[in-house]
Formats: sequence, structure tokens, C-alpha cells
Amino acid sequence: MTDPLAIGVDLGGTKIAAGLVDREGTISERREWLTPTSTEEALLAGLEEAVEELLGADVVAVGVGVPSVIDRVTGRAVGSVNIPLTDVDIAGRLSERFGLPVGVENDANSATFAEWRHGAGRDVDSMVMLTLGTGVGGGAVIEGRLLRGLAEFGHIVIEHDGAPCQGTCTGRGHLEAYASGTAATAAARRAFGPAADAHRLVRLAREGDEQAVAILREIGRRLGSGIGSLVNVFDPELVVIGGGFSAADDLILDPAREVMRREALEPAKDRVQIVRGALGTAAGLVGAAMVAFEAA
Amino acid sequence: MTDPLAIGVDLGGTKIAAGLVDREGTISERREWLTPTSTEEALLAGLEEAVEELLGADVVAVGVGVPSVIDRVTGRAVGSVNIPLTDVDIAGRLSERFGLPVGVENDANSATFAEWRHGAGRDVDSMVMLTLGTGVGGGAVIEGRLLRGLAEFGHIVIEHDGAPCQGTCTGRGHLEAYASGTAATAAARRAFGPAADAHRLVRLAREGDEQAVAILREIGRRLGSGIGSLVNVFDPELVVIGGGFSAADDLILDPAREVMRREALEPAKDRVQIVRGALGTAAGLVGAAMVAFEAA
Repeated sequence: MTDPLAIGVDLGGTKIAAGLVDREGTISERREWLTPTSTEEALLAGLEEAVEELLGADVVAVGVGVPSVIDRVTGRAVGSVNIPLTDVDIAGRLSERFGLPVGVENDANSATFAEWRHGAGRDVDSMVMLTLGTGVGGGAVIEGRLLRGLAEFGHIVIEHDGAPCQGTCTGRGHLEAYASGTAATAAARRAFGPAADAHRLVRLAREGDEQAVAILREIGRRLGSGIGSLVNVFDPELVVIGGGFSAADDLILDPAREVMRREALEPAKDRVQIVRGALGTAAGLVGAAMVAFEAA
Repeated sequence: MTDPLAIGVDLGGTKIAAGLVDREGTISERREWLTPTSTEEALLAGLEEAVEELLGADVVAVGVGVPSVIDRVTGRAVGSVNIPLTDVDIAGRLSERFGLPVGVENDANSATFAEWRHGAGRDVDSMVMLTLGTGVGGGAVIEGRLLRGLAEFGHIVIEHDGAPCQGTCTGRGHLEAYASGTAATAAARRAFGPAADAHRLVRLAREGDEQAVAILREIGRRLGSGIGSLVNVFDPELVVIGGGFSAADDLILDPAREVMRREALEPAKDRVQIVRGALGTAAGLVGAAMVAFEAA
């Protein structure tokens, strides 16, 4: 008899990533699709298709990480800043369709769960995670428990009356407006023309382009303001940075560390570490699978 | 036989407020002294004098709220931004001197504890509190438990690379630099000359002085950015505003509500209430007494 598997789905603003994952967080199969964002129905059909393709006899549950606030009482996805999703019972819909237990969690909370259980946070019992992707997601573990508040760390204000936030968010100066992959792409286009994006920005910086280095440095410094705030709130042992744009690595994390040390109080700032996630872009789907096993 | 009492001491940057408090949070006697801030020894002597004056046969414990990070392991006051205090075992010192159990807690955490048990937060199990005084303190109750992280909400960044923070804090653009009583006094002096302070600023605004109203409105708007961030982090049912400068009331809270609603996400922003503390400036000493009863 083989080990039970879960289908973990990371429903991102750009991509749907899904995989078969065992209880130890090992991925045996992994696939990706572009996220259909035309309508909510197209989005949900894309999600069902992803699950469908990975179904098999060993699958005992399905978990979905969603870029949305999840209502703690009803389990419904309340709404998303970055994808067309308003008040949907994803768990109910999928469990009816596939006859399996389904768990739904905020995508960044899922990633935090995965990094804590199987990744960079394996040895700590307090950590903060930020996922830098289409948006900026957040999660926190406090004294060995996943924070059940919003933990929407992408929507902390780092610039009062600052740049407008993304999508449906009415906020100004949110961390997401400066430190998401989307914000990096916008900055890259302003500097290098309409074909540029966050990936090219990072590549140019690695090749020594001073303007690209400076842009990433400014993004990293603002990330450091956000991290400093979170250190002063939670006093975490570890701050884990994940999501696709975390590939910029020390080009953003070194300036972030520098500003964090200016903003954060003693003794927290001396003991906290800022590190990249160990699971890379798989954190979301691994975490979603962990949520699935909890629902099973 | 009379009810057991605790001495609760709120060691503030400007005043030491102390009182005799019973388990229900009722204050039977209350006194205030100016805080001696010349040296650490003078400060601790002032603290001991306050306890000494309130001692009596019914007193079973002493509690102190300190504007300092408290080391969770050793119970020591790590250091304060606003008063001369560096790595001191206040509990050990006082219990040796007075032969009573002594509890020490961060001052804003104490105030949060008091407002939650006996004040504005009596009926909720998640709340955020901000105390606007010499500095800006913070505390949070999450799912019926006091947050044991730093909860230093005065030191969240609301303006990246903004105004220098107070005292020994190296940060820039912290909420405390804009929304503390100290910051309000500085703004009042810039507008109305060296004799003005936060109290006069509030009085002028109540008398209809447009400049004073505008200054308080700007302070309130920045407070709203900070509160919006905290709502997006914790999704609290209630945000309680205490401390001496909370006397500015709707002159700062109305603009704060307005900006909070811009910054915070659905559905949190629709259900959260921003209210003044019910215990006024007594929250700190009542909370310190609650901490004392827990130590007894």
C-alpha cells in the first residue's frame, strides 16, 4: 500500500500550481497552468481542471491556497484583490464535484504553514512570512500556532498617503504597492521600457546594471520598513521571504536587513533572521496539501 | 475581612500613577508623582516610594507597568525608549524590598489587559489597543489571549524614511513620531509658540481654532494609517485608544476612522470599531494590578 497523498493547489494571480504531496511535504508530481482571470466562473473551472488532472487512487484530500481572505466561520473565500473571486464556497464546490474532503486557506497562510512544518522555519516556533508575487501575502506563527487573524502583511501602510494599492484595494502606500513582483515589473518598465519585467530587472542587476541594482535596492529598503514593523509587532525568531520575486534574493534582502535593523527595537532586531524560503515557489502548494491533510 | 488589594503602578514617561485596586478593577486609592528621569537609580527610588506610600495590610501583591520591552524568560525590563532603564530586574528588586509577589509587564500590555477585562473590551475576544502618551504603546488580544510578542505598535513604520523616532529609537516614520502626545506637543509649539502643548492644542481646536483642528486632523489621519495596518494584521473586533492624548477624542478619531476605512480590507474594516478606552488614564495602573494578582 502506498502513502496517502493530497492534491495541493496554489491558486495564484498569474499561475495555478498544483501537485501531489505526501504528509512529509514531498512532491511526487507537479503541474502549472496560467490562471484564467477573465471571470470568476473561468477561474473556478481552471481550478477544477487542475484538480481533475492530478486525481488518482492514493489521493485522500484536496487543499487550495487562495489569494483571498477566508471567512473563519463559513470557510468561504471572501474576495480577492488580484483575481475575480467574490464570496465563493470553494471547499463546498470542490468536495461536491470530487467527493473528497477539501480544505481552503489563504495562500500566504498556506505557504507559511509549509515553510514552518517542512521548510526554513522547521526549528522555530515564531516566524513571520512574506510572499512576494503578484501581490504581497503574509502569515505568522506565534508560539507554535498559525495566526488566525488576517495577517495581510502586504496591506500594512509603509507610506502614509503613498502610492495607490493594487486591484480592488483602496489603500495608499501599502507594502504590496512597492515590494510585489507586480510593483517590480512596473518599476522595470518605467526604467527599461514596456518589454521589461521583474525577472529582467533581476537579471540586469546580476549583470551589474547600476540602475537595476538601485531600483531593487529601493524596493528592498521599503521591504525593510515593512519587516521592521512586523518585528516590532511579533518579535519573531525568523522572517521568511518567499514567492516568485524572492528570486531577487540579496539584491532586495540585504537592503531590507539594513533598514529592518534601523526600524526594529532591541532585543528583537538582534536575534531575528531574514531568510529566503526553503521550499521556493512550491511552498504554496505544499502548504495547501498540509491544509488538505488537516481537512481529511 | 476585607477584599485583597493589589498595588498597581503605571510607570510613565512623565508621571508615575499608582493605586490600590481590587480583583474587580475598582480603585480605592490613587496617587500620582512626576517621574524622576535623571538617572535609573532615581527612577527606581521613585517607583519604590510610590509602592511604599500605598502599602497596607490588605495588599497581597504589587504590579508594575513599564514602558519597556519585558524579557519573557527573565522578566527583566530590557530597556526603554523614553525613560532611563536598561536591563533591570524590577520584580526581583521590589519583591526583595517589600516581601510581596511582584509582577512586571509592558505598560501598554497592562492597559490592554485592563481594558479587555474591565473596560471597553469586556465583551470581545479580539482587540487591539493603542496608548497615546509620551510614546505610543500597543497591545493585542487574539482569540482571548494577550499577544506575547512585542506588540510595539508605536514603532510600526507609517512613513518609509520619515521623521526620526523618539528617545533611543533609531527608526524613521514610526507611528509614535506622529501620534504621541509628545509629537502633538511638538506640532503645537511649531504652530503656537514654545508655551503650547498637546492639551492647549486640543483646547484651541475645541474653541474652533482652524489651525489646531487641522493639526489634530493630520495626526488623526496618520493614526488611521497605523490602525488600518493593524486591522489588516489582526482583524480585531475593536480598536481601543487610550493614554492621555486620547483626550483629543473625535478630533483625532474621526479622521483616523476615515483613513482606516481606506486602508483596511473587507470584511474586517466593516466590522471593526475604533473607540476610546473606558478606563481613561487609569487603564495602566488597573492593568498593573491585574498583573499583580496573577503573580500573587
